[in-house]
Amino acid sequence: MYSPLFFSPSPSSGELSEAEAYHIARALRGRPGMELFVTDGKGNCIKALLTGVTPKKATFEPLETLSVYKRPYRVRIAVAPTRKPERNEWMLEKLVELGVDEISFIKTTHTHLESFSRVVNRDRMEKIAVSAMKQSGQFALPEIKIGTNISELIALPGKGDLFIAYVPEQNTAPVLHQAATESTDALVLIGPEGDFTPEEVTAATSAGFQPVSLGPTRLRTETAAIAACLAIHLAR
Amino acid sequence: MYSPLFFSPSPSSGELSEAEAYHIARALRGRPGMELFVTDGKGNCIKALLTGVTPKKATFEPLETLSVYKRPYRVRIAVAPTRKPERNEWMLEKLVELGVDEISFIKTTHTHLESFSRVVNRDRMEKIAVSAMKQSGQFALPEIKIGTNISELIALPGKGDLFIAYVPEQNTAPVLHQAATESTDALVLIGPEGDFTPEEVTAATSAGFQPVSLGPTRLRTETAAIAACLAIHLAR
Repeated sequence: MYSPLFFSPSPSSGELSEAEAYHIARALRGRPGMELFVTDGKGNCIKALLTGVTPKKATFEPLETLSVYKRPYRVRIAVAPTRKPERNEWMLEKLVELGVDEISFIKTTHTHLESFSRVVNRDRMEKIAVSAMKQSGQFALPEIKIGTNISELIALPGKGDLFIAYVPEQNTAPVLHQAATESTDALVLIGPEGDFTPEEVTAATSAGFQPVSLGPTRLRTETAAIAACLAIHLAR
Repeated sequence: MYSPLFFSPSPSSGELSEAEAYHIARALRGRPGMELFVTDGKGNCIKALLTGVTPKKATFEPLETLSVYKRPYRVRIAVAPTRKPERNEWMLEKLVELGVDEISFIKTTHTHLESFSRVVNRDRMEKIAVSAMKQSGQFALPEIKIGTNISELIALPGKGDLFIAYVPEQNTAPVLHQAATESTDALVLIGPEGDFTPEEVTAATSAGFQPVSLGPTRLRTETAAIAACLAIHLAR
């Protein structure tokens, strides 16, 4: 895709956001007649023609709706956030680049955070997701959930394959990209730096979550989330 | 590994670095008699006993050499650095966590950097590598190369399987984790944000580099490097 991709929550309005208008006016020196692509972040993309552009407002005329490949499986990552906001943001950016449908920042016993909102800021996360979606030429934003307790998620995990990134003492967990062989949805639980408690692991496995390894080395939380996301795609 | 892992370039000296001494004295409140592990970053690890500890100096007595699993294949990532130092540093940290033997920051035609050293600082990279090695419980530091020109690397790539992260127009490149099936060394070339030039691709393929895809989406340089490293491990 060589024409730039823009985001508009409602493309039928024929108008880009002010931030996008500024970008197209200043950085891209857009002129009426310029071709662009506009996604609604819900899996759709249209080809359009820029009709008017100022640093504050950009309007377009839809030309045609693109036929877009829709991934036949949903990728869901549930991860305990780390203590550093920038690491959580970097993780979300990478997950969106790789392709993810749901990112859930969960609370676990060992998630020692006086304030979840200090390390996971929804506004920033949503902006980062839009930017990463456009940058990687995708058309769907992930659902971002913040603050679900792991027990709630284990109780109501949703449909599809369920995995927990945990290697038991005896080291007998299969590698995720080999365990995730169905073309169904997949949800992977990634624990905090202090790991899951034995009770959490038992609750998860009893509810059908399969323990999996993410590779040969011990990974930080944010690296594990990325490895899990990639493994699910590589398994298809 | 529950005892902390420390790094000493020469464990036979029986002494940790001053930074490690400070950490063991203050953060871990180490006392003589405490068990610790010390790696030389060259693939070896010993179990040792702390014999003396102040915030400036920590000494230890080696107890035994651990039998360490040595990966039977080398993972080499050659990547054009991005313009932001922090992204290059994250990338290196993640590569070390995942397990990597050589990280080469290469110059390509589209690597528009007035100064390579501004975006890749060797001292910082080496510190980050040591930290990530210890954090992930590994015992070998990667070789870090800075500034090799892609043409030099293509001319003298070294032994093993050679890959270039590049998907030709007709979209017929295999996915890396399926292409990399041998237990030999593997070198993957990752291009800059502006991609490889057609000449670079031709030179690489003529020299035996196989074009590979890293997954279903378009990835930023640093994400591609991480995806490539993971794919090589998952292929074993």
